[in-house]
Amino acid sequence: MDERIEEHARILVEWSTKIKEGDNVVIRASEEAKELVIALKKEVAKKGGKPITIYSSNEANRAYFKNFEGEFETPEHVLAMMEETDVLIGIGSDPNLRAMNDVSGKKLAEYSKAHRPIQEVQLSKRWCGTQHPTNAQAQLAGMSLDEYKDFVYSAVLRDWQEVHDLQEDLKEKLDEGKEVYIKGPDTELTMSIDGMIGVNSDGENNMPSGEVFTAPVIDSVEGEILFDKPLIHQGREINGVKLKFEGGKVVEYSAEQNEEALKDILETDDGAKRLGELGIGTNRGIDIFTKNMLFDEKMGDTIHLALGRSYPRCVGEDREQNESAVHVDMIKDMSEGILKIDDEVIMDNGKFFWEI
Amino acid sequence: MDERIEEHARILVEWSTKIKEGDNVVIRASEEAKELVIALKKEVAKKGGKPITIYSSNEANRAYFKNFEGEFETPEHVLAMMEETDVLIGIGSDPNLRAMNDVSGKKLAEYSKAHRPIQEVQLSKRWCGTQHPTNAQAQLAGMSLDEYKDFVYSAVLRDWQEVHDLQEDLKEKLDEGKEVYIKGPDTELTMSIDGMIGVNSDGENNMPSGEVFTAPVIDSVEGEILFDKPLIHQGREINGVKLKFEGGKVVEYSAEQNEEALKDILETDDGAKRLGELGIGTNRGIDIFTKNMLFDEKMGDTIHLALGRSYPRCVGEDREQNESAVHVDMIKDMSEGILKIDDEVIMDNGKFFWEI
Repeated sequence: MDERIEEHARILVEWSTKIKEGDNVVIRASEEAKELVIALKKEVAKKGGKPITIYSSNEANRAYFKNFEGEFETPEHVLAMMEETDVLIGIGSDPNLRAMNDVSGKKLAEYSKAHRPIQEVQLSKRWCGTQHPTNAQAQLAGMSLDEYKDFVYSAVLRDWQEVHDLQEDLKEKLDEGKEVYIKGPDTELTMSIDGMIGVNSDGENNMPSGEVFTAPVIDSVEGEILFDKPLIHQGREINGVKLKFEGGKVVEYSAEQNEEALKDILETDDGAKRLGELGIGTNRGIDIFTKNMLFDEKMGDTIHLALGRSYPRCVGEDREQNESAVHVDMIKDMSEGILKIDDEVIMDNGKFFWEI
Repeated sequence: MDERIEEHARILVEWSTKIKEGDNVVIRASEEAKELVIALKKEVAKKGGKPITIYSSNEANRAYFKNFEGEFETPEHVLAMMEETDVLIGIGSDPNLRAMNDVSGKKLAEYSKAHRPIQEVQLSKRWCGTQHPTNAQAQLAGMSLDEYKDFVYSAVLRDWQEVHDLQEDLKEKLDEGKEVYIKGPDTELTMSIDGMIGVNSDGENNMPSGEVFTAPVIDSVEGEILFDKPLIHQGREINGVKLKFEGGKVVEYSAEQNEEALKDILETDDGAKRLGELGIGTNRGIDIFTKNMLFDEKMGDTIHLALGRSYPRCVGEDREQNESAVHVDMIKDMSEGILKIDDEVIMDNGKFFWEI
């Protein structure tokens, strides 16, 4: 077995989820991640955990969705399992990323609603989402599998303690800071983060990670921004998104590609027109966009803003949380751009304050 | 998709497990059974069931066993899931049937013991075990995959209502009968089935099925028998087993191949030296041995006897159940042989009483 797979498994078990004796563990994977599942079973065994693997398959899920009529209900057996689970590891690994493309969004939304109780239980456990290098992701990224493996492990096999320590400074600046100023091509945006809480994303819930994020004060966003990197929403690639904010709300929008999809997002509900997240990617092991948000939003030269729901843990006690059914991340390359917090330069044309 | 896979799925959902609206369903499979999983998800959806698929892998289980030290405990999350489950479908489909060969039998036994509560819950649900045609099973059977597919579907795609009706006569003879007499090459055996209960195995718990079975009265087995078909026990093939019974107990034994393995079975415990089952295979779609007990014991020209534990539902109220940690089936070809119940001929040189 490729030693990098074994190292990936060790990071997931020891750093991300800290599996210990007696832990009930759920691994979710497709057959494409078979080797990582084997490596995980080995590492979980060493810690004395009790693993079960759920087989995830877009193709099988599609067969289910296309043939199910009626109202979705919460599957009690899955809920019961999750309630007794200590650790969840989800491995992105489907052999075909577009196998669900002809399933109606309405059906998926109804299904999600029925599964919300399971989702909530899962989020209350120790959990981590990761990616195994597959041909499907390699193809999406425009790479050979061999090249894509190098990309994935360059992003994943890092000293996460070092990442944590480096990011802790940035988290403190987000905690203490009040005003964020972002400037770049077609971009001049301000927002308040006063009273909001920064999160040091160091590989606990996402592997790879390498990101610090917070939530904007709900009505504070003003100005214009161009997102120059693509995003994939429900199988549709949206490119060249421009947004104009007034009083925290999107008042003008456009996209170079799939503007309709952007419109769908913005019209989901009232919260979808506001920002729920400001994230700053710090992972220097990610140096190319691969159309996989798990990696793209962590890239060391980027920031991302999300339309929709904010993370409760980012929202200060006396602050309002932005509520929405969606949370859609959009990425901006900052290799030509500046980000300041209260006039202190945080990012300057592709360099962090700790690199300047 | 091969239409036979879709028909297999329909039989499992409609006949074997009778899935209905709201049923919580667990499918257990490896990636080799992917197409059957897709077909099952489709059929389960049509009935309004809620499926989850457990990924089973000998290779991953081996990694777990080889690295786990300490005492196995019941995984509470799996137990909780099974308690809320209505229907289980297990699909034999591992890509390598020998991947667990270097795992110690002692470890497997300890693991089984920790999983017994789960096993018991599972047996209280609607459940069915089946086989998807794989290269691993085809190789074991000495066939190409294409040929093996024809074999599997010839055994599985039957009119199970017709099988049920035909077998019901045989079940009644086992219910009402007292003395069984078996004669053939190197074989003359008698046993009592007085007060025992026949089971019409028509595809509910095994797919394929095609078998009627009961339990011998515990001390009644007398005489000698040659099992001319191989059996695989913990990865070891045992051939040409001869047993001599007195007062229900094995008093002499031999095997042409792997006699040591036979000895291990007999020495497991006291019950392992007694018979727990007399089964009669009726499935005429199975005309060749493939070293897979799911099929072999159902073959239309055969009987099988099991050393060890008898099934509680075969044991009459005032009769004693044979208890043992093992239940090992051994098969005898009856194309040259006679089986009588109370002097009535049931099988005569390869023909059933309903075929004569």
